[in-house]
Amino acid sequence: MSLIDDLKSGIVPDWIESIVRDEPITNRELIDGIVSGNIVAPRNILRQMSSPRAVGRGLRTKVNANIGTSEDISLVEEEIEKLRVACASGADAIMDLSTGGDIPAIRKRLIAECPVPFGTVPIYQAAAEAHKRGAAITELTPDEIIGAVEAHAKDGVDFVTVHTGITRRSIDALKRQPRVMDVVSRGGALLVGWIIANQQENPLFERYDELIEICREYEVTLSLGDGMRPGCLNDAGDAAQIEELKILGELRERALSAGVQVMIEGPGHVPLNEIEDQIRMEKELCNGAPFYVLGPLVTDIGAGRDHIVAAIGGAVASMAGADFLCYVTPREHLGLPTVEDVREGVETLKIAAHAGDIGKGLPGAADRDLEMSKARKSLDWSKQISLALDPTTAKRMHAERSGDRVDACSMCGDLCAMKVASEALGIENPVSC
Amino acid sequence: MSLIDDLKSGIVPDWIESIVRDEPITNRELIDGIVSGNIVAPRNILRQMSSPRAVGRGLRTKVNANIGTSEDISLVEEEIEKLRVACASGADAIMDLSTGGDIPAIRKRLIAECPVPFGTVPIYQAAAEAHKRGAAITELTPDEIIGAVEAHAKDGVDFVTVHTGITRRSIDALKRQPRVMDVVSRGGALLVGWIIANQQENPLFERYDELIEICREYEVTLSLGDGMRPGCLNDAGDAAQIEELKILGELRERALSAGVQVMIEGPGHVPLNEIEDQIRMEKELCNGAPFYVLGPLVTDIGAGRDHIVAAIGGAVASMAGADFLCYVTPREHLGLPTVEDVREGVETLKIAAHAGDIGKGLPGAADRDLEMSKARKSLDWSKQISLALDPTTAKRMHAERSGDRVDACSMCGDLCAMKVASEALGIENPVSC
Repeated sequence: MSLIDDLKSGIVPDWIESIVRDEPITNRELIDGIVSGNIVAPRNILRQMSSPRAVGRGLRTKVNANIGTSEDISLVEEEIEKLRVACASGADAIMDLSTGGDIPAIRKRLIAECPVPFGTVPIYQAAAEAHKRGAAITELTPDEIIGAVEAHAKDGVDFVTVHTGITRRSIDALKRQPRVMDVVSRGGALLVGWIIANQQENPLFERYDELIEICREYEVTLSLGDGMRPGCLNDAGDAAQIEELKILGELRERALSAGVQVMIEGPGHVPLNEIEDQIRMEKELCNGAPFYVLGPLVTDIGAGRDHIVAAIGGAVASMAGADFLCYVTPREHLGLPTVEDVREGVETLKIAAHAGDIGKGLPGAADRDLEMSKARKSLDWSKQISLALDPTTAKRMHAERSGDRVDACSMCGDLCAMKVASEALGIENPVSC
Repeated sequence: MSLIDDLKSGIVPDWIESIVRDEPITNRELIDGIVSGNIVAPRNILRQMSSPRAVGRGLRTKVNANIGTSEDISLVEEEIEKLRVACASGADAIMDLSTGGDIPAIRKRLIAECPVPFGTVPIYQAAAEAHKRGAAITELTPDEIIGAVEAHAKDGVDFVTVHTGITRRSIDALKRQPRVMDVVSRGGALLVGWIIANQQENPLFERYDELIEICREYEVTLSLGDGMRPGCLNDAGDAAQIEELKILGELRERALSAGVQVMIEGPGHVPLNEIEDQIRMEKELCNGAPFYVLGPLVTDIGAGRDHIVAAIGGAVASMAGADFLCYVTPREHLGLPTVEDVREGVETLKIAAHAGDIGKGLPGAADRDLEMSKARKSLDWSKQISLALDPTTAKRMHAERSGDRVDACSMCGDLCAMKVASEALGIENPVSC
């Protein structure tokens, strides 16, 4: 019995009920959303998870943080620190994208530490291990590719990205309409290489029923990867991307019918004016499946501040209906993120998610903003600090420049706009900006 | 003869022609835009300015950096350094909001250093000087308020913010519909106080013809301030704000008819989903006048990262038609910005302006993005660095984590997505992400 089966039968696990405490929907709406496939609540049956989360219709927009080693930089303790910092900053999910070091050992340590849903991209491990033993990635067997997913499911992974939409059909679309950046998804690129070299269909597509079975058994949520996502503004919304999205919509129906939870991954690099269309297209082609976007990045030239580029795109995507934002760190396109990059990425995308929730009219989304405005008006600095999305940074920045005037406005001094206006308007309480 | 008069007579100064070199419009379109009031090119007749700029229809979205002393922190050298850093980072205009120290001396030093249009808010100086001599702000005479504008014009200031829309009419609107934050514009608040205490109309409104005369004489562009701008999401788009905007639209016509350039200032704090409406409303009520927005800030709880909050709002505003973005620094709401805050603010809002230009379909806006994508594909790191909006930061971040592998992808190593896919697709050049 999968979670969807249980909920259909009226069996509701306790952890499901804990989710709505921090959401603007009822328990009934959450259950209906999971059953209809408009919401996912990723949680492997083997997992201990102190802070379960759900993603989708009517819920707060969530933020994921990618961490993980590379071939060049593989320091387990640094990745554990990234996980802790990301969660302390408010990440709603963690994905381990490790490709260096002892990948299974790293994963197990990270899962044990992770209070929120934990995801992976199993083909990375398969590819990295092939590479380590001197084999070409194209020499991986279909069993090894499927086996990697099963191994991750058995380790307790809550959601897996599988690039099932990279097929002969989507590769044909890619060939018909050449791109500037070809394929920038790592998993997608590996499978394009595998399919062309082996002249065989993608095992994740061809043996999709086996994937569904694995996911049913361990209650793993499928995150159908967008291997054809655009890697630059120029390639956004092209034939390959749309063709893949159609395939993902079809595959999502099959998994959902089998009682397996599914979300859909999306771009990537998209011009600001095309984001809304991209979200609408996904919701139509995938029948309202939760949409998990990477950014989107609204310019290609923001290297060094791509977290901000992603926040612009992510806020607009969230407002348009995206459910889950994968963070981007300041080091995107430049190198593997540091612990500080991870913190900055999470804090930044949290702003985007929050602004999007206000923009999409989520009930209560702006309540904390109203409290902050009242705290500003009454010059209550400790309340202003505590209501900030990142109180630590707000406190530090205020202390650095306010000097001793903690009881007065640090910017305008005696010219404080609110004080002047409120006095003039005959409002009694002393106020300040 | 004002600039508009000259252009109408077919007299085109050389500096006007230099502006279009970096813009996607023709010289003729620029001239027509200035004459019709859809574009402003602020430049005081007394000014030396190495990099003149124009703001408005068909032009790149511009970014302004506010600098200036406060009563608590008044270090001239720090403000000069802020000006240099802002301009080096690509600010298109500088506003000096000094309220501490020897304000006229500070202004003169800053103007002498400033290569781009330079703006001020003259009433700040009038208020600060009244305060210094122990007088209440409400004791300022109308002559002193108008005189401050004239003094700034004589110092070579290119554009001045005047809160002409704070009138008995807009104050009535404010009283009819109470706000959470009342008036957060400093200039606006001072004038609200003055009007109520003196039971007289705003001198900047009542003696507007004199303002027009001063601006004509020195070719000062009027930036009609939004003293009633919302200070929190809750107050956005209320009666006071709309009433003021209507007044500004009327005043703009009067100045334009007299050959004086005008832009309109806008909010402020605005929910993401209301930004487009705000821009459309300004363009309608002010007949296409260039719109100069502060942010907008799309959440009230981003203290410590309000530059990012402003970048989200600014990008969407720019896409919707805003012409000029006032930057916000990370220290907004917390204290007077440092030099580093200024740099971060300019670099961040530049991203917003650029993303907005792509989003609004400005011709050629994404050309550099395309070049970057090609440089990424061909693994040309030096070109990638030089094409970044902030090459210094991109270079540093890349060097910190790339180690010795400058010839290879620093993130994916041998699993580089582009390399794998391009090889599989039979593309010859070695490529990488």
